[in-house]
Amino acid sequence: MDLWFSEYHQDGVKLSINVEKEVYSEHSEYQHIAVLESKEYGRILALDGELITTEKDESFYSEMVVHVPLNTKADIKSVLVIGGLDGGVLTELEKYPTIESIDVVELDQRAVEVCQEYLPQSKLAFQDERVNLYIQDALKFVRRKENAYDLIIVDSANPFGLNESLFTREFYGNCYNALTDEGILINQHANGFYQEDVTALRHISDRLKAVFPVNTAYFTSVPSYAAGYLLVGFSSKGITPEESTGLAGQFDIQTQYYNDQIHRGAFYLPNYIKEMLTSET
Amino acid sequence: MDLWFSEYHQDGVKLSINVEKEVYSEHSEYQHIAVLESKEYGRILALDGELITTEKDESFYSEMVVHVPLNTKADIKSVLVIGGLDGGVLTELEKYPTIESIDVVELDQRAVEVCQEYLPQSKLAFQDERVNLYIQDALKFVRRKENAYDLIIVDSANPFGLNESLFTREFYGNCYNALTDEGILINQHANGFYQEDVTALRHISDRLKAVFPVNTAYFTSVPSYAAGYLLVGFSSKGITPEESTGLAGQFDIQTQYYNDQIHRGAFYLPNYIKEMLTSET
Repeated sequence: MDLWFSEYHQDGVKLSINVEKEVYSEHSEYQHIAVLESKEYGRILALDGELITTEKDESFYSEMVVHVPLNTKADIKSVLVIGGLDGGVLTELEKYPTIESIDVVELDQRAVEVCQEYLPQSKLAFQDERVNLYIQDALKFVRRKENAYDLIIVDSANPFGLNESLFTREFYGNCYNALTDEGILINQHANGFYQEDVTALRHISDRLKAVFPVNTAYFTSVPSYAAGYLLVGFSSKGITPEESTGLAGQFDIQTQYYNDQIHRGAFYLPNYIKEMLTSET
Repeated sequence: MDLWFSEYHQDGVKLSINVEKEVYSEHSEYQHIAVLESKEYGRILALDGELITTEKDESFYSEMVVHVPLNTKADIKSVLVIGGLDGGVLTELEKYPTIESIDVVELDQRAVEVCQEYLPQSKLAFQDERVNLYIQDALKFVRRKENAYDLIIVDSANPFGLNESLFTREFYGNCYNALTDEGILINQHANGFYQEDVTALRHISDRLKAVFPVNTAYFTSVPSYAAGYLLVGFSSKGITPEESTGLAGQFDIQTQYYNDQIHRGAFYLPNYIKEMLTSET
């Protein structure tokens, strides 16, 4: 059987991956959940038809959203991950013995269960005793927190549909309050290439600027994502990224993508992206 | 009509772009040449079914293969471009008044003619009086040159089929002889992500190391290319890249992608690519 999973990166652009089999699929209360097996990308998680993560390149994303803030000046002990059900981000966080607690908030219990059953990394990641899972609406969860986290990672899909509330000014304001003074908010900014993503990027950037004094973004290559890359937003109350502190090296943390040079270079953005991030909409 | 142009990035992975119309196509003596019009990527040039360049992201490639060497210490006056029929690389080169001559070698006269007719940038680029076009086999052309060029840019497609001779040790040796002492060879290294490209990358890297004392590679994001990025090889007899000299800024050269930070940051490669470039095959 010649089976292809196609994801539209834009109306007239799609990436298709040949699939050996659909390992699992269901319609949960919230969304369609699918786990696919492919030769080129390994196991793939798709939610509502959108590619969330693949075995082959998930570390390019997970390492960059974790090691960049962890190797910034801030002394990070308490972390909140919103989403993160596939376990990639948790796996990277757990490499730091300096982290004391990791709260994970996810809306869809079934999605968590499916990931734990079909993605080996997810099962392992949730076994770390520092991890506390909350099946809740993230907006409501964050609203109740104050001065509680040194790092919040919004490990969500694109800012459409189910995840829209995670890209609002209200949500960012709640994150601000939930963070400590030296806290960092990491969230995905889509790419700056296709028109739909450019519009999303500008909205996210404007809303963050209305809440946080420090806002920047950095680049990571993720071949299975639209345009082959993702911009990751870095917001804080004062902390700036700059040079790596080398903490990952101190703990001899092994990475496929991240290193101290990439830490710095990821913030050097192409002109067309810099212009988008600085221009008013 | 629902018309799609699909390019296989690997056996089980393809990128498809919705096409408004096929503007032109022919089988020349050497290859199939097609010009397509698309909403999302603008005009597309495909040779033997392989996407060569698109209006939307060609500058990400062209700027990086030109401005990186031009903003390196070397004083570049004489340039050889192998391929380059779409005009993107020529356009960027021509922005430097310090360049005195640009030789362009292309095998397929028809491909040049089609580009000049259907890609506005190509027509304009070949009108610059510093440009001399040679319709010849590049391997033979370079063999006769000695100490003639400060910069050689191999602006070719992937190292398969028609272009295979441009990725041999013999060709690289000829380039070495054709370059001045401070000369630089720029050539495309594919990506380091899909298996077929990894194999190609390792072969190219090994062959270059057998000829040039200085070999490195840098990253550029090109969304329409396989894996969404390209590695560009930088080889020389002694010159190393490092910081930008700022020459582009002196001439107030406008760019969509390149800037002085990107010049430096593009050489900061992810671990998995660094390992490929340094390991022996």
